[in-house]
Amino acid sequence: MKEKALELHEKNKGKISMVSKLDTKTREDLSLAYSPGVAFPCLEIKNNKADVYKYTSKGNMIAVVSDGTAVLGLGDIGPWAGLPVMEGKAILFKNFGGVDAVPICLDTKDPDEIIKICKAIAPTFGGINLEDISAPRCFYIEETLKRELDIPVFHDDQHGTAIVVLAALKNACRLLNRDFANLKVVVNGPGAAGTSIIKLLYRCGVKNIIACDRNGILYKGKEGVIDQKEELCKITNFENIKGELKDAMIGRDVFIGVSAANCVTAEMIKSMNSEPIVFAMANPDPEISYDEAKAAGAKIAGTGRSDYPNQINNVLVFPGLFKGVLAAKCKISEEVKIVAADAIASLVADDELADDYIIPSAFDPRVAETVAKFIIEASEKDERKE
Amino acid sequence: MKEKALELHEKNKGKISMVSKLDTKTREDLSLAYSPGVAFPCLEIKNNKADVYKYTSKGNMIAVVSDGTAVLGLGDIGPWAGLPVMEGKAILFKNFGGVDAVPICLDTKDPDEIIKICKAIAPTFGGINLEDISAPRCFYIEETLKRELDIPVFHDDQHGTAIVVLAALKNACRLLNRDFANLKVVVNGPGAAGTSIIKLLYRCGVKNIIACDRNGILYKGKEGVIDQKEELCKITNFENIKGELKDAMIGRDVFIGVSAANCVTAEMIKSMNSEPIVFAMANPDPEISYDEAKAAGAKIAGTGRSDYPNQINNVLVFPGLFKGVLAAKCKISEEVKIVAADAIASLVADDELADDYIIPSAFDPRVAETVAKFIIEASEKDERKE
Repeated sequence: MKEKALELHEKNKGKISMVSKLDTKTREDLSLAYSPGVAFPCLEIKNNKADVYKYTSKGNMIAVVSDGTAVLGLGDIGPWAGLPVMEGKAILFKNFGGVDAVPICLDTKDPDEIIKICKAIAPTFGGINLEDISAPRCFYIEETLKRELDIPVFHDDQHGTAIVVLAALKNACRLLNRDFANLKVVVNGPGAAGTSIIKLLYRCGVKNIIACDRNGILYKGKEGVIDQKEELCKITNFENIKGELKDAMIGRDVFIGVSAANCVTAEMIKSMNSEPIVFAMANPDPEISYDEAKAAGAKIAGTGRSDYPNQINNVLVFPGLFKGVLAAKCKISEEVKIVAADAIASLVADDELADDYIIPSAFDPRVAETVAKFIIEASEKDERKE
Repeated sequence: MKEKALELHEKNKGKISMVSKLDTKTREDLSLAYSPGVAFPCLEIKNNKADVYKYTSKGNMIAVVSDGTAVLGLGDIGPWAGLPVMEGKAILFKNFGGVDAVPICLDTKDPDEIIKICKAIAPTFGGINLEDISAPRCFYIEETLKRELDIPVFHDDQHGTAIVVLAALKNACRLLNRDFANLKVVVNGPGAAGTSIIKLLYRCGVKNIIACDRNGILYKGKEGVIDQKEELCKITNFENIKGELKDAMIGRDVFIGVSAANCVTAEMIKSMNSEPIVFAMANPDPEISYDEAKAAGAKIAGTGRSDYPNQINNVLVFPGLFKGVLAAKCKISEEVKIVAADAIASLVADDELADDYIIPSAFDPRVAETVAKFIIEASEKDERKE
């Protein structure tokens, strides 16, 4: 794997290339695409800023912005070492969603600097996808940019996973005929993804959620629980349960792991309610393997891995999500996230749903198109309402 | 022209698109180009930063950075309205030089902010082309970035024109058998381009240069002559001549205009030395038309226009220049600029040189290749010397 991956990257000198949509072979080509003809679209945009979407590539061009502080499972490897991942993200945006994406790896870790830079480069881009920025800095950066920019902003590490988890969980309930809002859920790993998962589930009616981090169950007033974790205590653990992860899992219907390899045992699965749902998404090694989870009684299991059933992978989300919001020229609200999850869930029909098929494949060609379509339709409905 | 240009821009939704160099059609494709395989190039780069050139697209990817303050002849139209020009520049980089270029239009005019942003986004890019940033801010921004970044930085508005003027003037001297260093030159319009022209000619041995702006000839101690114009007084007008442009032109061998339409008359050309060289490059309307200049006695005339002979166009420079410095991984020193000019000049053979052919056509397919080759060879020679 290592040699093949290095060879592939070296042979192609990276993974992305900028191309011209136009020929510049004749004087006329040049005089229309560049000087002096280019002055006309410039002046149109000067007179009406919205025309930038009409005459430039902005409307389908996003920036994939990272400071390289939380790259894959590798941690803070810096903006240069993070570049292969951002190029990878860019090609997934293009190959899966038809969205043009430019990696922007930043040589600064200062959240206010990152915000300033994103705001400054925004004229070129139709949207900003924040990527692999460590928590809790990522929350402040995303919230500020969402408020202050007029283009969609999305931190994929937070919301991509949350959306696909929501889709998978809704489909699991559909299959098992369970009441979504009454699920008792434990989420292990309240970082970027875990926080967004909890907030999105809560927003969708799930009120019984317990969050755990390395130091055990989060509860109001616990020493050292600050930032977003303190916020989470306002919407989780209303029974004020204390203890470790193993205590949190007793009597739960759903385990959602975005934490660390092998932190869940068969005994812990057995302590859950009967026929539990187990999404163990730590990468590359899950909290408990698919096979172990199933053997311990999990009715439905899912992981982040492509070599087991029910791969819960955010590539199902981000290409279609941006394709949709760029087309609809809308921002990414909680409603848009829920619509995206519904779109993904809808691709598994009632008669296809099975323990080992609650979520479409990453390569299902309908996914990005359907996510975009759902978003565009919801946005048109919103506009009619206004 | 207007309708055609608008239609072309609207039909294609801008001029640039990001593409993937790799397929992501199978699980194996995905596991090599993205997770988990992408971790290997990341770790190689983490251990050896220079490997970013080996495993990513950085080595052939430049940013075309503008704040939209001096776009074409349109002035300060802002970053949104400037985007069609930056996309145009990007496609010329690609179509003429094979260089991937990303427009970055900045919503700030603060020189220190622009510097900070360019430094912060540098990990992604192999070079930075500054574009359409107004003088005198452009000088400070470029000088600072050249000093503080480890990648090549080039303000095309300054040096692109200077390099092609140097090439044209050297070839004019070759044709007319004149001594380059003894030329008496007047440069009208000491802005971004004019300043660089003067400095480059001076560096190449031309010591008798007079610079004029709207208020006439520049001389040491003149009231209101500040910033780069004050600097220019140290290398121009050693005879301390005073007066207007018409006074400056008397007895000169060469007129170089990067100023305004129709500011030169036939009488002024006639007051120059016999058989003068006249480069009237104001765009789209020159300081004096090609035909008028010739009729008034100019031995050689050149303009920025494609519909007359001797088009002095910086598209001859920037694609090949970046192609060369990216390949050689060198910065853009004065020597590199001179080498680039020599490369362009070399493409007109002795037996081809003529009053109406002192510079190759913008569409001459040899240009970018030759400029790059000259730069790479010079850089290799430098390395051997060290």
